[in-house]
Amino acid sequence: MPMPRILLPAYRSLASFTAKRTAVTSQSNQVRIVEVGPRDGLQNEAKILPAATKIELIDRLSETGLTTIEATSFVSSKWVPQMGDNSEVFRGIRKVPGINYPVLTPNLKGFESALAAGAEEVAVFGAASDAFSLKNVNCTAAEAIERFKPVLKASQKHGVRVRGYVSTIVGCPYEGAVAPSAVVRVVEALYEMGCYEISLGDTIGVGTPGSMRRMLDEVARAVPAENLAVHCHDTYGQALSNILVSLEYGIRVVDSSVSGLGGCPYARGASGNAATEDVVYMLHGMGLNTGVNLDKLIQVGRYICTELGRPSESKVNRAWKGPAVKQ
Amino acid sequence: MPMPRILLPAYRSLASFTAKRTAVTSQSNQVRIVEVGPRDGLQNEAKILPAATKIELIDRLSETGLTTIEATSFVSSKWVPQMGDNSEVFRGIRKVPGINYPVLTPNLKGFESALAAGAEEVAVFGAASDAFSLKNVNCTAAEAIERFKPVLKASQKHGVRVRGYVSTIVGCPYEGAVAPSAVVRVVEALYEMGCYEISLGDTIGVGTPGSMRRMLDEVARAVPAENLAVHCHDTYGQALSNILVSLEYGIRVVDSSVSGLGGCPYARGASGNAATEDVVYMLHGMGLNTGVNLDKLIQVGRYICTELGRPSESKVNRAWKGPAVKQ
Repeated sequence: MPMPRILLPAYRSLASFTAKRTAVTSQSNQVRIVEVGPRDGLQNEAKILPAATKIELIDRLSETGLTTIEATSFVSSKWVPQMGDNSEVFRGIRKVPGINYPVLTPNLKGFESALAAGAEEVAVFGAASDAFSLKNVNCTAAEAIERFKPVLKASQKHGVRVRGYVSTIVGCPYEGAVAPSAVVRVVEALYEMGCYEISLGDTIGVGTPGSMRRMLDEVARAVPAENLAVHCHDTYGQALSNILVSLEYGIRVVDSSVSGLGGCPYARGASGNAATEDVVYMLHGMGLNTGVNLDKLIQVGRYICTELGRPSESKVNRAWKGPAVKQ
Repeated sequence: MPMPRILLPAYRSLASFTAKRTAVTSQSNQVRIVEVGPRDGLQNEAKILPAATKIELIDRLSETGLTTIEATSFVSSKWVPQMGDNSEVFRGIRKVPGINYPVLTPNLKGFESALAAGAEEVAVFGAASDAFSLKNVNCTAAEAIERFKPVLKASQKHGVRVRGYVSTIVGCPYEGAVAPSAVVRVVEALYEMGCYEISLGDTIGVGTPGSMRRMLDEVARAVPAENLAVHCHDTYGQALSNILVSLEYGIRVVDSSVSGLGGCPYARGASGNAATEDVVYMLHGMGLNTGVNLDKLIQVGRYICTELGRPSESKVNRAWKGPAVKQ
């Protein structure tokens, strides 16, 4: 098997380079995509889709080779109208063996509904920025983590895996730049609480390879890279570069959204997810494996964009004429 | 001055890493942007603009801190109608001391017109792919280079600097993947012929960090990195990642186009340039200097997009609310 072509920052000392290189060679060439289009994507789309369309979307995604598809969110429909049909969607999808269908559960009530619907993996959502947390859930970042404890406890009791999200990992719309140490605090708390994986979210997409590295320099030291994922938004066009940087640190799980669902093409400040098609194109071009059939994925992107009545936010999808030019 | 945070591929041997690192530390933190919007950008826009608007665009770009602005192309207006006003535009722009305004001159006739208009720097355009060259100029890549010799000779006589472009450096629309050795041949020929800088163009934007590295592994060995530039199109969303990779190799000159001029937002297979705003945002976020005032540049992008009657292709431009979140 060829050695993965991984980047390392040159400013590291030669000693840490050697150490890191050893760590990197022990990595596989495999990258797991966490497809968040049906949840994080759709909840940010203005057009409310019928449950049948969401089920169709997820069932089609299940045919592409993806192994993790975030299906829905068990939140109050008062907060997120698009997710009001969560139970119907979750019960309606075809559960393909070998594919995980996590759902977002912000509190114990949501967890219980998810469990009743048959969820085997849930996700909780914290923030690195206090200002962001206060605006969104009316408590500090640390207090929000405390509130997850009952969810974690209940999940352990029922054998349900929990994924943790941390938002505003490099920038916050209310307080600007976020200190890496604030990210470390939340990531460590979620890890120690039992989250098997923590997804680092650049919620407003302001990160660059510079701020990503400053953050990962500290976070990847605090928690093993194999328990980390990145969740980059493309608001400033930096998502793929930021994902590329995260690979340097041994991170091999990337959240993205088919056709960049959740991003509004021309709304000022719209925060779209990295488009799965573009992420997969880059990773495959680097010789990394995702298991995803890009051509099939592109067809799914075109299906859901037609349903939403808007163009794809994936440049690969818009340019795709089939895999003629082998990269 | 802090050391630039440059990436290095981990697959290099430790010895070559050390050698490379020495090379990298000798690099400055300065990246020069070659703004190609008025030429490469506009010539791919369907709407023909009046000369006065082009002059206004270039004059406004001259106020942003850019030091190289490709002004126009001295080609036959039968081939490129948008450039039919080349002399008028070139004579009309304000020549700010310290800023270079290169023009494209595909042959001696073009060179003589450019010289008559007062050009002090010209550019010639070769291809790495024979199939591409045959389709475009009806001769092989090597034959095309031969045709530049009179331009190079004349330029030396008149003290005019010559920049070389090489297109299809990783992929060709007619022959698929392009071998790095083919790129080396053309780059070396242009370098030995006297081009002070050679710009490596991913004309159809199919490159990824994988194919860029395979190409640069050979090209940056053949010609010094300080004589190389990259010219990445964002057709598949990979431009910034590919630029990021080129920095690993010590390349510090990046071609880009304000607001991604030349890319058609939703046309299938449209090959837009990397948007200068997005490139500058990334580089500044990495602690690299471009000398460009991003806020001023964004205003210029909005001006020209208004004139063209289309949205900006720069995500930074669309999201920009001012430099509130410091990265």
